[in-house]
Amino acid sequence: MTTLYDDRRPYDNFDATTREWDAIFIGGGASGRFGSSYFRAMGGNQLTIEMDNHLGGKCCKNACVLHHYLYEIAVELDKARIWDKKEYWPKFPQKNGKVEILPILRDYIVGREYVFDFMFHQSKEQLKLQFMLNRRASIVDPHTVKVEGKGDFKTKNIIVAAGAGPAMPNVPGNNLKGVYTYANFLELDYEPKDVVVVGASKSGLPWACFFNAVGCNTTVIEMMPALSQFPIDDDVRDYTLRMMKIRGLPVLDCTTLVSINGNGSVKSVTVKGKDGQEKTIKADLVYLGTGCTPRSKLVAPLGAKIGPKKEIIIDKYMATSVPGVYASGDITGGVMEMWKARQGGMMAAKNILGNPEAFETELFADTVHTFYETTWVGMTEKEAKEKVGQVFVARMPIQGYKNWLPLPLCEGTMEFAHQWTDLSGYQKIIYDAKTRKFLGAQHVGYGGKDSFQYLLYMIKQGATIDDIANLTELFINPTHFIQLSRLRSGMKNLVDLG
Amino acid sequence: MTTLYDDRRPYDNFDATTREWDAIFIGGGASGRFGSSYFRAMGGNQLTIEMDNHLGGKCCKNACVLHHYLYEIAVELDKARIWDKKEYWPKFPQKNGKVEILPILRDYIVGREYVFDFMFHQSKEQLKLQFMLNRRASIVDPHTVKVEGKGDFKTKNIIVAAGAGPAMPNVPGNNLKGVYTYANFLELDYEPKDVVVVGASKSGLPWACFFNAVGCNTTVIEMMPALSQFPIDDDVRDYTLRMMKIRGLPVLDCTTLVSINGNGSVKSVTVKGKDGQEKTIKADLVYLGTGCTPRSKLVAPLGAKIGPKKEIIIDKYMATSVPGVYASGDITGGVMEMWKARQGGMMAAKNILGNPEAFETELFADTVHTFYETTWVGMTEKEAKEKVGQVFVARMPIQGYKNWLPLPLCEGTMEFAHQWTDLSGYQKIIYDAKTRKFLGAQHVGYGGKDSFQYLLYMIKQGATIDDIANLTELFINPTHFIQLSRLRSGMKNLVDLG
Repeated sequence: MTTLYDDRRPYDNFDATTREWDAIFIGGGASGRFGSSYFRAMGGNQLTIEMDNHLGGKCCKNACVLHHYLYEIAVELDKARIWDKKEYWPKFPQKNGKVEILPILRDYIVGREYVFDFMFHQSKEQLKLQFMLNRRASIVDPHTVKVEGKGDFKTKNIIVAAGAGPAMPNVPGNNLKGVYTYANFLELDYEPKDVVVVGASKSGLPWACFFNAVGCNTTVIEMMPALSQFPIDDDVRDYTLRMMKIRGLPVLDCTTLVSINGNGSVKSVTVKGKDGQEKTIKADLVYLGTGCTPRSKLVAPLGAKIGPKKEIIIDKYMATSVPGVYASGDITGGVMEMWKARQGGMMAAKNILGNPEAFETELFADTVHTFYETTWVGMTEKEAKEKVGQVFVARMPIQGYKNWLPLPLCEGTMEFAHQWTDLSGYQKIIYDAKTRKFLGAQHVGYGGKDSFQYLLYMIKQGATIDDIANLTELFINPTHFIQLSRLRSGMKNLVDLG
Repeated sequence: MTTLYDDRRPYDNFDATTREWDAIFIGGGASGRFGSSYFRAMGGNQLTIEMDNHLGGKCCKNACVLHHYLYEIAVELDKARIWDKKEYWPKFPQKNGKVEILPILRDYIVGREYVFDFMFHQSKEQLKLQFMLNRRASIVDPHTVKVEGKGDFKTKNIIVAAGAGPAMPNVPGNNLKGVYTYANFLELDYEPKDVVVVGASKSGLPWACFFNAVGCNTTVIEMMPALSQFPIDDDVRDYTLRMMKIRGLPVLDCTTLVSINGNGSVKSVTVKGKDGQEKTIKADLVYLGTGCTPRSKLVAPLGAKIGPKKEIIIDKYMATSVPGVYASGDITGGVMEMWKARQGGMMAAKNILGNPEAFETELFADTVHTFYETTWVGMTEKEAKEKVGQVFVARMPIQGYKNWLPLPLCEGTMEFAHQWTDLSGYQKIIYDAKTRKFLGAQHVGYGGKDSFQYLLYMIKQGATIDDIANLTELFINPTHFIQLSRLRSGMKNLVDLG
């Protein structure tokens, strides 16, 4: 296969006779590409300028897709490890005591080319987008974008969708060889043995579990109480952490990174623990899951309003403080997720082309990957009790039962459920006991993520326990919410089940 | 662990002072147990009589749960087989050229005890059901049930939920050793090598794929054109069949079973093929995925109306032709699925206790397991074109693209998508191009099942492409419907994407 992605030469695909564009998108990542597509679909004349050599952004380059790739391999290796005792299961691979990481990354790098190529094909041939690759853009004024090597482009509107880059903690040794973020992880050129992951975060935990699953001695350090940043109940948090602990993955929480130590390359990290004492942890690799910083300096020439975390401030209509200039995606800070980037681009397009709609980002389903996905939507039990008073909760596993629950609580754990029942997941659903309305749900397991976006729709529709009990479930689901709701929904006064 | 399930002694858990019950449920399977729970939750006084030694029915004994257990093991072994070439992946197990089946079944039989115990605990302690186990019931008149060893019980209503048993094709040799259905499969006591599965059906295909995945030389024979009984489009059907074919699992369709041959035990089967010619296929095991027959003889003493497939005829309110007698679940024929059994029991309860509601069973999501799940809901593309005219279809993989699609189209295929892209699934979503309404969806892959029950809710709510484009997807989903909808939903006149 030949692709465009072998070199860094600029690539241009647009009508050069255009004198003024309806909109120029700076950045062809999730937000820029989806925004451009929607804009184009509405009939607008758009141009998208991407500084990298492909569309689709960092997601398919080295961030979200890599994150999920490593997560899925971690799950498979974890299962192989658990099932290792079964005579009918392949033996867990042991080469120098661990699974090699470099071939896994090589596979990713090869496969990535196909993703880039598909994004290119779909954008050009199906969506008819106009775009440039390998070209840097800067903003001259609200209606002029300067493109390196091409000069000035006039436009009615600018949508800034240039994303964010890794945020590095400002500690000694943060530039040593062996310090990685998602942005340089694919440059790894040795097999690590002792790994410290900084941040029990959405971006740190899947990497930590991957390192553990391949057999690295791995430790997570986290400034806050573990998983406290996620709106989940204590029982769900405890289960998630316990599943890491029994696999030999400690999370040192309320612990601060003091320094990364080494001579040229990483040898250890020094941390300050809960007890206020400093201690040193051996490490030949440090992975920083410490978040991202928006690339907002792009709008500095305009004097557009910037927030304390370098995010571009926008209103509900995606407009910055400068008329004619919009921003969308990671560059606007807050939750840096796909749906927000994609949908934000689409909302910017709608608002520019005269179909204004406010972008509501308050309610969303979210997930953190460990060896499982911990997924949540809506209110927690605790929050619901504070807000509506009497709530009804259905939970699996149930409490006070002498054995662990032998039902698979997620996809791919029929065998866990029958053999290592504790490992098969955890879930709960929360209703308002008076109005019977569905308020929220949480799930630890595999294969439940896809449901949660639809569960949010049901919450927004005002669905009740009776609506959920009337759904037609497909046998054993990752989320048993329908069955559990059905068992109790005959009651006028709902009594917890779980 | 000690359970009640070691012996066949009767077990009674009910208030013996009750002179007349509100309802007696005959059968404590999916329908009887959920119906009883709902009835109890509504305040009714119920008694449930189960002839087997556990609640939960054949589902958790030897049917659906076993079916899913074998499916999931087949998926894992299939992945192990595919990934076998990767240096970081465990080698595919080879013992006498195949994976042993008997230890897999032993694991299931052990694990099943926990399921029985949980069902018992939940029913007794949490749901406060009254029930008998290991007791056969017969119907004396519409208000009298005779229980073996206990005498007559008076009741206002009877709900017949006694399920169905395997349907055996009437051919010579159907009683040879080596002929199995789900009902006796756990009695398997040898390692088969050459397997013929009769029926490319929901019940036959997962077994066939399991036999193939463990390394048995396996052939499926089917009377009809392959997969023609499922409401899916040709492209989805072709992909499903191709995925079986490339794994060495042939489906001989339009082929009839003539005889099962052997001397005491099975040696071969004779079939009549498409060409009208008979031929013989070597086999040391024949698995019959030829459906189930309702146990409707229970209602014969009442003269209740029975249909041509021995199903008890009921109205939309679960009532049989005999006043006071209801029926629910597999015994009523048609689609024999969990949701129908469970929800039917619940509807019977509602209708008896004066909260009448018609049970709509026309629209439902459904799935067939092969090496993947092929799942569908609503209209096919073909049906939609006939019914509404102009439709919009979004599909992955897209057509006319020189490479295969490198995006994972389902859970657990990030690595497939990057390496064996053809294997990562298939999906499509169908909208009415004029009203923009969501009409139907189909998915081949893993982890999509759980979404489809919610997608049906959206169809019933009248959701449009714009509603789906506004959902907040959780990154890479098994079902890419949201993203695909978003890319095009800006268009007034929708143009297919895929």
